Amino acid sequence: MAQPIKVTSKIRLSNFKPDYRAGMSKEEAREQTTKLCFRIAELQQLLYANSNHSLIILLQGMDTSGKDGAGKRVLEFVPPSGVETTSFKVPSSEELAHDYLWRAHKAVPRYGHFGVFNRSYYEDVLVVRVMDLVPKPVWKARYEQINSFEKLLSDNNYIVLKFFLHISKEEQAARLRARIEDPTKNWKFEESDLEMRKHWDDFQEAYEDAINKCSTNYAPWHIIPADHKWFRDYAIAGVVVDALQKLKMKWPKPKIDLSKVKIK
Amino acid sequence: MAQPIKVTSKIRLSNFKPDYRAGMSKEEAREQTTKLCFRIAELQQLLYANSNHSLIILLQGMDTSGKDGAGKRVLEFVPPSGVETTSFKVPSSEELAHDYLWRAHKAVPRYGHFGVFNRSYYEDVLVVRVMDLVPKPVWKARYEQINSFEKLLSDNNYIVLKFFLHISKEEQAARLRARIEDPTKNWKFEESDLEMRKHWDDFQEAYEDAINKCSTNYAPWHIIPADHKWFRDYAIAGVVVDALQKLKMKWPKPKIDLSKVKIK
Repeated sequence: MAQPIKVTSKIRLSNFKPDYRAGMSKEEAREQTTKLCFRIAELQQLLYANSNHSLIILLQGMDTSGKDGAGKRVLEFVPPSGVETTSFKVPSSEELAHDYLWRAHKAVPRYGHFGVFNRSYYEDVLVVRVMDLVPKPVWKARYEQINSFEKLLSDNNYIVLKFFLHISKEEQAARLRARIEDPTKNWKFEESDLEMRKHWDDFQEAYEDAINKCSTNYAPWHIIPADHKWFRDYAIAGVVVDALQKLKMKWPKPKIDLSKVKIK
Repeated sequence: MAQPIKVTSKIRLSNFKPDYRAGMSKEEAREQTTKLCFRIAELQQLLYANSNHSLIILLQGMDTSGKDGAGKRVLEFVPPSGVETTSFKVPSSEELAHDYLWRAHKAVPRYGHFGVFNRSYYEDVLVVRVMDLVPKPVWKARYEQINSFEKLLSDNNYIVLKFFLHISKEEQAARLRARIEDPTKNWKFEESDLEMRKHWDDFQEAYEDAINKCSTNYAPWHIIPADHKWFRDYAIAGVVVDALQKLKMKWPKPKIDLSKVKIK
């Protein structure tokens, strides 16, 4: 049975298969992804030419779920000057001296640009909740605040697309093992990854809540099957193309009569 | 005769051919560029893994010289999360309320990242000089200030590579015409481009001065023949690879004994 990508009603994460691939082969998916990525680059040019909308691609997922890889692949043909990528790491002391949405608002891309959020303010209802970093009433109030923030963005011409990269616990183990076995990947290995892994079920629950409470028609969540990297990229690229095509953008009319311009 | 790329002594711009191609064909250059770009992506991973150096790719050149295109091509295989691109546009009122290097220092990439400067603080001795936006003693003092700023960056593990994309006046005319004739490029056409074009010779003189006064062993200028886009990209990619290889980076050693790690 076809598995939905966009979340439009209350979901249970356990009903979503991380290795889902819509019956596609790797070759087939890769070929389609390349076409979609070229289309994204064309649409980005139109977005840039018009500069009255922005697109935010927000990527969340457990360690090793492929947030970096997906961002790289999907925007492969887009010039870097049109993309503002922000990795939301452990907050700095300056960031902690502000409300948790302060750094997110600062990172919003200018009109005409794509923004990639590698992690995001959702960490403030994910790791912060699981590791008990603030009292429960504080993080509980955030879902509503996040919805309001995303409404503000949407009302001001930001297209907010949120992607949960859904991998299985087994696939994470395999990817972590690769970091230990491959000397060129050793540097990526962090002991804290194992610590987070111990809380796998709590994280899944926190993700489920975040997705259910914050998937809105103006800023929908998408559950991306991510055990197969090639299906992950294909699925995200498709969502991005659809969202941009809905804008029905046209090349802007020149401000002056170009037929009268003489270049000496 | 081979035309130098890196500026190591006083130059005259008029001695540099914008259509130079080192005897290469388009196919040959493109094939080499792809190899170089893959190598850049590998080296970026090492830079990121070690995170004790950064690379700044500073691109300057007349309108249509291909600053965007070059940045896109050369970093084609590098994940966007490892690149911080800054376009230095006409300064905002907030930027004008500070010294001219303030926004540049803010834009310096974090260690482990690449930074792309699409235009830069050199505009403060280029357009600012040609269009007479500040008194002569003010812009004259800036060359020395820029050298000091770049020395600071270099002393603090920033590799600063500066590229002047050198196109001919004829090639610019052809590219501007394309913007008028191709409806998908109309939006790129600005009347101000023609205004700047009128000052072509003054700009060449300003570039020549900036290159001569600010090409140092710690932050060299490179004159990139840019009439052929494929030679432009090949030349830049080669300089980037050379600079990164000189660091002789190795994969960092893991902080803990990975042989003892068990993944459950």
